[in-house]
Amino acid sequence: MREKNISKIGEFGLIEIIKNQFTNASSDKNIIANIGDDSFCFKSGKNSICITKDMLVEEVHFKKEWITPQNLGKKSIEVNVCDIAAMGNIKPKYAFIGLGFPAKTPETFVRNLYKGFKKICDKYKMTIAGGDIVRSDKIIISVTVIGIGKEKIVKRNGANIGDLIGVTNTFGDAGAGIALLYKHGINYKYNKAERYLISKQNNPKARLKEVWKISKHLTSLTDASDGLYISVNLLTKDSGKGAEIHMDKIPISPNLKKVFKENKKQLDFALFGAEDYELVFTVPRLKADLLKKLIPEISYIGAVNSSNKVKYFYNGKEQEIKYCGYKHF
Amino acid sequence: MREKNISKIGEFGLIEIIKNQFTNASSDKNIIANIGDDSFCFKSGKNSICITKDMLVEEVHFKKEWITPQNLGKKSIEVNVCDIAAMGNIKPKYAFIGLGFPAKTPETFVRNLYKGFKKICDKYKMTIAGGDIVRSDKIIISVTVIGIGKEKIVKRNGANIGDLIGVTNTFGDAGAGIALLYKHGINYKYNKAERYLISKQNNPKARLKEVWKISKHLTSLTDASDGLYISVNLLTKDSGKGAEIHMDKIPISPNLKKVFKENKKQLDFALFGAEDYELVFTVPRLKADLLKKLIPEISYIGAVNSSNKVKYFYNGKEQEIKYCGYKHF
Repeated sequence: MREKNISKIGEFGLIEIIKNQFTNASSDKNIIANIGDDSFCFKSGKNSICITKDMLVEEVHFKKEWITPQNLGKKSIEVNVCDIAAMGNIKPKYAFIGLGFPAKTPETFVRNLYKGFKKICDKYKMTIAGGDIVRSDKIIISVTVIGIGKEKIVKRNGANIGDLIGVTNTFGDAGAGIALLYKHGINYKYNKAERYLISKQNNPKARLKEVWKISKHLTSLTDASDGLYISVNLLTKDSGKGAEIHMDKIPISPNLKKVFKENKKQLDFALFGAEDYELVFTVPRLKADLLKKLIPEISYIGAVNSSNKVKYFYNGKEQEIKYCGYKHF
Repeated sequence: MREKNISKIGEFGLIEIIKNQFTNASSDKNIIANIGDDSFCFKSGKNSICITKDMLVEEVHFKKEWITPQNLGKKSIEVNVCDIAAMGNIKPKYAFIGLGFPAKTPETFVRNLYKGFKKICDKYKMTIAGGDIVRSDKIIISVTVIGIGKEKIVKRNGANIGDLIGVTNTFGDAGAGIALLYKHGINYKYNKAERYLISKQNNPKARLKEVWKISKHLTSLTDASDGLYISVNLLTKDSGKGAEIHMDKIPISPNLKKVFKENKKQLDFALFGAEDYELVFTVPRLKADLLKKLIPEISYIGAVNSSNKVKYFYNGKEQEIKYCGYKHF
């Protein structure tokens, strides 16, 4: 019998191996959010301390031809701040940056990467707290961010039957941006709308200020790092519920509509295109209007129900949806 | 003019670039140990929270033929616990494991690696708190460990003139072990003493219980991850002092003496061979005997002075020492 390699069992298979090995490990009562959430969080006195970790590998997560070193530096920290934002009212405080470089990496690349780290840390008033540099074949950027807050964190598992499912801003732009880069490369003459989509891929924004405004009203929360489809699945599954999603309510940007005119294509990017990093949350129906007043860029795309399944509708008609996202292995 | 690449400026050159960019970043009064120490530490209420991060890359930091996957898993966490131990009375609590695997990695390799993670976490009652898995060309293991303690941490910069410089156990074994592996590979018929040296390379031990016993008496502290020579330099430089080191007092194991009979060779391994992970500390002269009663495996190898230089002596005669450690770039 040939031995299985990890490309056969896939990323989620791997995560299952890992989860199964560590089911006994959570006897620590200070742990308030575990491996299944966007950040790991523990209590220290009155503080909730949240930790995220994200690793970017050249050619797997980025091509250095497609993003400037400065934007790469910014993005690699910003995506961790997104995971902090996905826990509620938490301030990102400290960043650790582990780097791997081939020996032939130009010094200017390193300097510009660090300029990006510095800009994003200045923006959020974060401190670069440490890290290490190793030699590697491909560029590796492994970032850990620590956030601290005093309010109750919002996990993925608190959605109640009847809650509305809300999202911030628009979906699909970042996925469409990377699709354009795969199709035409970086040197193509893109029009303004296309450049917008590419910039959404290369310059993600954590919805930190937004989440601070609304977190105390939310029953569950995540960010759409792996696409809206996966986010909705996570919230409903972890909450032991189901949902109906009205695809015609999913917010699509004018630029995405301009570049990809076919409605099905737009929705594919919105559901399965990764790296939008928008907030995906549930909220009691009675508070839905209040939230929309606090953040006008909120859309409600569906509601939680008791079905244990997520059903998709378009103009009231149920649609069959097949997952077609990106697999790491 | 040709542009410099990072192999020209070296690892310490890179760290200088980084340090210079972030000199303004430490306005946060909760930070109690910064990028220059073994761990980054901040205050949260009564707790000191310490964070370490270490990244191991296949073919750079390990060869998978030379260490079992289980030992590799154990070692990659243990070296982070060593950095926690180097801060004093801190308990390691949470580990984050970022992994990069080539798609062809056998599933059993991953399972055994995780067995190692689990064994070491059980030993220290630590929780695997999260992490991520990415695809990469070479195996990458990026570990972050968080430790928590209530006592004052011990930094590198507190050595006083007249303090004795102490170390735990013996030096040079791990460096000699890797030298043997480079010379003969893993399938050679090693004798018992040689196997001991290789096991010191593959199975490092953090001196955690030892440091808990003595930390309150120490004026400065680090671990010897990059060799005794660098550790002594760090403590004296960060404390703004100098030292005299008596090389004939550096503890050498009977096994190292058996395998490498030449005294100069033994001392080269002890001073420049990395990965011994023993404690290197300074202590007021009056407390030196007390510490030796608490931990009989302590040796005193020299004393701190006001000279701003580290001088090496052998049987009372000054020796010229040239650094010959390993460079990452």
